[in-house]
Amino acid sequence: MAPPYPPSAAAAAAARLLLFSVLIAASFSCSAAAAGDVPRALTLDSVRESLIRQEDSIVFSLLERAMHRRNSAAYDSSFLPPASLAEFFVRQSEIISAKAGRYLNPEEVPFFPDYLPEPLVHPHSPPQVLLHPASATVNVSKEIWRIYTREMVALFTEEGDDGDHGSTVASDLVLLQALSRRIHYGRFVAEVKFRDAPDDYIPLIKSKDRVGLMELLTFADVEESVKRRVEKKAMLFGQNVTLDDKAGRNNTGGRGKYKVDPEVAARIYGEWVIPLTKLVQVEYLLRRLH
Amino acid sequence: MAPPYPPSAAAAAAARLLLFSVLIAASFSCSAAAAGDVPRALTLDSVRESLIRQEDSIVFSLLERAMHRRNSAAYDSSFLPPASLAEFFVRQSEIISAKAGRYLNPEEVPFFPDYLPEPLVHPHSPPQVLLHPASATVNVSKEIWRIYTREMVALFTEEGDDGDHGSTVASDLVLLQALSRRIHYGRFVAEVKFRDAPDDYIPLIKSKDRVGLMELLTFADVEESVKRRVEKKAMLFGQNVTLDDKAGRNNTGGRGKYKVDPEVAARIYGEWVIPLTKLVQVEYLLRRLH
Repeated sequence: MAPPYPPSAAAAAAARLLLFSVLIAASFSCSAAAAGDVPRALTLDSVRESLIRQEDSIVFSLLERAMHRRNSAAYDSSFLPPASLAEFFVRQSEIISAKAGRYLNPEEVPFFPDYLPEPLVHPHSPPQVLLHPASATVNVSKEIWRIYTREMVALFTEEGDDGDHGSTVASDLVLLQALSRRIHYGRFVAEVKFRDAPDDYIPLIKSKDRVGLMELLTFADVEESVKRRVEKKAMLFGQNVTLDDKAGRNNTGGRGKYKVDPEVAARIYGEWVIPLTKLVQVEYLLRRLH
Repeated sequence: MAPPYPPSAAAAAAARLLLFSVLIAASFSCSAAAAGDVPRALTLDSVRESLIRQEDSIVFSLLERAMHRRNSAAYDSSFLPPASLAEFFVRQSEIISAKAGRYLNPEEVPFFPDYLPEPLVHPHSPPQVLLHPASATVNVSKEIWRIYTREMVALFTEEGDDGDHGSTVASDLVLLQALSRRIHYGRFVAEVKFRDAPDDYIPLIKSKDRVGLMELLTFADVEESVKRRVEKKAMLFGQNVTLDDKAGRNNTGGRGKYKVDPEVAARIYGEWVIPLTKLVQVEYLLRRLH
């Protein structure tokens, strides 16, 4: 029986971290560097656009995971103690993803970074990393994992076990990656906000005022809009589409029958996605002057 | 540099095939067997419901893949000759999926079955496999792979290279799996149709009349409805959702701006998904009396 990760990969981790640092450094010395032939800029607009698009990915992934029953046994550590089937699957998948170069993109953050091998592939040119190096490593993966397996899955899946744990953990992987990308995108949000108005942040950063930073980053009305939009997406994407009705219209008045309760999708954002993104922003900013 | 698949896995393939045969045999000797604690029946209604739900998965996956540029280099065999990055990623992912038990579910068909290891996990009870053993092995994976990498990707992605090949092939995997599941679901469609009216099929099967079988399985109006529903789903799921408008209403009149051209989504169904599903049905039926 294979271990959750090959011990031989441990040796490659340091080299990978070094490569990552070099790429970050390279991007700062060459601001015009682009990944592939498509330049990616970091602006308030591009960040907002990405956050909105990522809502779609999260709702799609919620709907895909919700096709399966809860299948609690997939999160039970008795599979390869102390790893659950879900942890085994995500660890192994991240090893392949690392080889395929997924983590050369700074938007992608692995859940289990300690034993990842070097990429076998390199982008044509280094990705345009625009994060502050000392802040780029902010990471709340452990918290996402804990919340997902212990609280979140139970909210939007039907109780029971359909026996199809292999496909279940594959859909967990996609959803976990979408949640992690969105939450860790807080690093890009914070970077853009800081550059836009550094004088607002510098005093709070210098005095390590977490509460003050959190207040500065909190816009209750914007957060409410995000939750309402996610709820609407869960309605639109989770409805039973037929050719009889005008597309989506008959599903917006009442709750109807949706594949994931739209209120639950909004709650996942309100309770976890938004607060964790803000936590990432605060932690990022606290290291922004290092 | 690791090979696309571990040679050590080859030895386990025969054992896995044996296990699969045993599971299929078991299901026939015990028709009440259920996967997990949730029984799954195979009826005309359940098959239709599954086909409709799988449209959602395919449209979601198209939209996720379309977030990336075409990134043609990911399909170039120069990565680990003769394997492309996409092939490397899918092969390696299927090894993990096999260990996690994905292929214990007969709805899941791997693209590269020859070197898959045994599952490390077993469902609580064998899955309720209801396919005819001699027909269950019908497989058009090679054709799906060829069409996907050589023709389909170019239809719904924007030209260019964003350098993010790792995430690209991960979204290819999800889409390829959704397409393969839908197309190979033709085996279940054929089984249900055969059981519903065996006398319609038996003479054609006995005379190996492919053309006659294909005619019997073809309902032009139903196919047209499927394409229109897929088009509508691509509109609904691929629109830019805002809180301003009534959900979806303003996007159903005109073509508007969608993340994947809804006509292309319908075309993917009309040119490949539907014909390949029917091909699977014909091949399944031809072996149904063995």
